[in-house]
Amino acid sequence: MISVEEACQIITAHRINWGLETIPLSFASRRILAEPIVADRDFPPFDRVTMDGIALYTDTPLTEGLFRIEGTQYAGESPQTLTSRGSAIEVMTGAVLPLHTNTVVRYEDINVSEYSDKRFAALKAPVSPQQNVHHQGSDRQTGELLLPPGLRLGSSEMGILASVGKAEVLVEKKPRIALISTGDELVDVSAIPLPHQIRKSSGYQLAAALQEMGYASDLFHLPDQPESLESKLGDLLQNFEILILTGGVSAGKKDFVPATLEKLGVQKQFHKVAQRPGKPLWFGVKPGKNAVFALPGNPVSTFACFLKYVRPYLLRETLTPMKAVLSENIVFKPELTYFLTVAAAFNEEGRLLATPLKGSGSGDFANLLACTGFLELPSDRSVFEAGEVYPYFSFR
Amino acid sequence: MISVEEACQIITAHRINWGLETIPLSFASRRILAEPIVADRDFPPFDRVTMDGIALYTDTPLTEGLFRIEGTQYAGESPQTLTSRGSAIEVMTGAVLPLHTNTVVRYEDINVSEYSDKRFAALKAPVSPQQNVHHQGSDRQTGELLLPPGLRLGSSEMGILASVGKAEVLVEKKPRIALISTGDELVDVSAIPLPHQIRKSSGYQLAAALQEMGYASDLFHLPDQPESLESKLGDLLQNFEILILTGGVSAGKKDFVPATLEKLGVQKQFHKVAQRPGKPLWFGVKPGKNAVFALPGNPVSTFACFLKYVRPYLLRETLTPMKAVLSENIVFKPELTYFLTVAAAFNEEGRLLATPLKGSGSGDFANLLACTGFLELPSDRSVFEAGEVYPYFSFR
Repeated sequence: MISVEEACQIITAHRINWGLETIPLSFASRRILAEPIVADRDFPPFDRVTMDGIALYTDTPLTEGLFRIEGTQYAGESPQTLTSRGSAIEVMTGAVLPLHTNTVVRYEDINVSEYSDKRFAALKAPVSPQQNVHHQGSDRQTGELLLPPGLRLGSSEMGILASVGKAEVLVEKKPRIALISTGDELVDVSAIPLPHQIRKSSGYQLAAALQEMGYASDLFHLPDQPESLESKLGDLLQNFEILILTGGVSAGKKDFVPATLEKLGVQKQFHKVAQRPGKPLWFGVKPGKNAVFALPGNPVSTFACFLKYVRPYLLRETLTPMKAVLSENIVFKPELTYFLTVAAAFNEEGRLLATPLKGSGSGDFANLLACTGFLELPSDRSVFEAGEVYPYFSFR
Repeated sequence: MISVEEACQIITAHRINWGLETIPLSFASRRILAEPIVADRDFPPFDRVTMDGIALYTDTPLTEGLFRIEGTQYAGESPQTLTSRGSAIEVMTGAVLPLHTNTVVRYEDINVSEYSDKRFAALKAPVSPQQNVHHQGSDRQTGELLLPPGLRLGSSEMGILASVGKAEVLVEKKPRIALISTGDELVDVSAIPLPHQIRKSSGYQLAAALQEMGYASDLFHLPDQPESLESKLGDLLQNFEILILTGGVSAGKKDFVPATLEKLGVQKQFHKVAQRPGKPLWFGVKPGKNAVFALPGNPVSTFACFLKYVRPYLLRETLTPMKAVLSENIVFKPELTYFLTVAAAFNEEGRLLATPLKGSGSGDFANLLACTGFLELPSDRSVFEAGEVYPYFSFR
C-alpha cells in the first residue's frame, strides 16, 4: 500500500499529452493555454485619458488658471493638437491625450463658461502635472510575455487574449471523459428501488463537479459480471481518453474492475492507498492513450478521491492550494491519511475555520450537504489539535 | 451618490422572478432549486454492509471465534437469513445486512479455511457488536427535508437529487443575458487597431466569468450614437432579461447610456456609487421584465462592479462570503469604498493573506493577471493597517 504523496506523484508522472488544437477565443475559457501570449502593442497603446474633463499642458502644480477650450477629443478619434499653452482641449475618458498636452483636469475640478462663442475652463482645485493620464506602455510593453503556456484560462486571461487580438488560440485538447458506475445494487434515478437497491447517484455528482471545471462527461453503468465488463470497458477505452469508474475495486467477490482493466491492457500503477476514506483506489494507464481512475463506490470515498486525485490531474495542478484551521481536537489512530469532511467558513480573523462533521463514514453522503470540503490530516499522527492548519480541498 | 451598502440593498430589493421550469436532472447543476426535496426513503434505506467480509450476530465484544460460512450476500440481492448463531454469512460492501446478523467483520480480520466442502472463518482481531454496519435511517429519515428551495445545486446536491429519484427537478428559469459594450474607440478582436483604438476585451472577460457561474451570454457592441443606441437597446430589452452594459455611463459628452435607458422605460434605481473603481455604476429595472446593469468601461472597474453587484444578483446571494487579511498598510483618503486589487494566498496559519497590487488604476487590466480578487476597504476610514481583515471577492 502506497502513501497519498506517492499516489499523487505517480498520477502526475503519468500525464498524457492529448494533443493541441486551435479554437475560437469564445470557446477558450477554462482551457489550458498551449502558446506564449505576447503583448502586440504597449499596454495602454497610447497616453490614455482616464477622466472626462480638459487636457492642458503644465510642468508645475497649478492652483488657478483660465483656459480657452480649443475643441473636443473623443475616444476613438485620432489625436488633436493643442495650439497654445494657455488653452485646453476637452477630453473624454478613453481618448488619446491630445498632442502638446500632458495633464487632465476632470469636470468636477473646473467651471466652464462661455463668452462670445468661446468656451473657457477655470480651475477650481489644485492640479498636478501628468494627473489623470495613463501613460503608453506603463502597464506592459510591446513584446512582453503576458501569458505563459500551461496556464488555465480564466476570465482575466480571456480579456487579455482579446486585447492582443487572439481571435483564435492554441490550447491543449480536452480528453473525453466516461463516468462509469458499477454495482448490481444500483438502479436508475427514475426507478422505484426494491428494499435492497439504491439509485445511482455518484455519476450525477461527478458529472456536476466536472461541469463546474469546464468538462463534459458521459454516464455509463456496467454490471458486476466479468465478460460484459470486459467487452464494454474495451469499447469505452477506444472512445474516451479518461475513464472514471466507481465501485468494484475493493476486496469483494464481485470486484472485477482491476483484473478486467489489466486484461484490457491498462497498466496498473497502483492499487490501494493509505487513506480513509478511499483506500481501494486504483489507477492505471494505457500509455499515450488512456488514464483510468477506479474509485471506491461509497459516495464520500468517491468524492474525496475525485477531489484529491482526479480534479488536479484534469486541471494540470493549476488550482490554488487552500489551507484551513481545525476547529476542534480530532483523534484518528489508523496509520492512514484521513480526509475529514468539514464545513469551513472564514472567521473574523480571516482564517478559514474547518468544523468536522459527524457522519456515519464513507456511505453517508447526505453529510456532504453541510460539507464544504475535506481537510487532509497526515498519516504520521493520531492526535490533531484545534488551531492546527492542514491542506483543505473545497468543492463549493 | 449612494453608498456601496445602499447599492447592494437596492439591487437585492429589485429581484425579478423569472418564473419556474421543470428540467431533466442532468441539466440541473448550478441552477436554483424551486421545490423542497424530501427523503423518499431512509438514508441508508437498509442496514448496509460497509466492508467486504462476514456478517454474524453478537451482543458482546468478541476476541475469538470460529464461524461456519452459510452463504454469500452480494450487493443488490434481497437479504438472506442466518440460520444459526454459530455461523456467519459472507457479505459484500453495499449489501443488505443479512437477517439475524448485526455485525460485520472484514476479511483482514479473519482467516478463512475449508473443511469437507464447508468454509469456516476464524476471528483474528477483536470484534465489537454492530461494527461495520451503516444502520437504516441513521443519516436521514423518510420525509426529512434534504434540500430547501432557493438552494443553488452543486455537485453534492446533484447526488442527493439522484438518490431520491428526482429524474426531473423544478428550478428557477435562467435569465437570458446580453453583454453590451459601447465606446467608439473599440474595434473587433480580429482587427488591427489604429493607434488611437483598442480591441474589445471586457465582453470576453465577463462572458468567461458568467460561464464559470453556469450562465450563457451573447455579446453585442453599440456605437456612441443616441438614435442607434436607442433602437438597438430597445430590441435587446425585448430579447434578454438581463442587460450588462460596459462604458458610456460617466460624465462624458458621448455617455448616452443612462438617458437612453430611461427613455426606453428602464427605471433608474441609482446612478453613481461612493466607490473606487466603479463610481459611475448605473442600475435600473423594467419591473417584472428586465434588470439592467450599466458598468463603467474601464476594465478593472467593469470587473469589480461585476463581482460585487452582478455576480451575487445572479447567484441569489448563495456565494460563501470570503475574508482576507491585508498584508501591508494602505492609505486611501477619498470617502469612497475602495476595491483594492490583491493577490491572495493562504499562509501557514490558514489565513488568506491579501497582497495589494501596484497598478495604474482602473485602466490597468494586465494587472488582473496577478490579481486573484478585490479586497473591500470601507469608506469611513483612510488608513488600513497590515493584519486587518476585510471582505474579499475572489474570481479564481
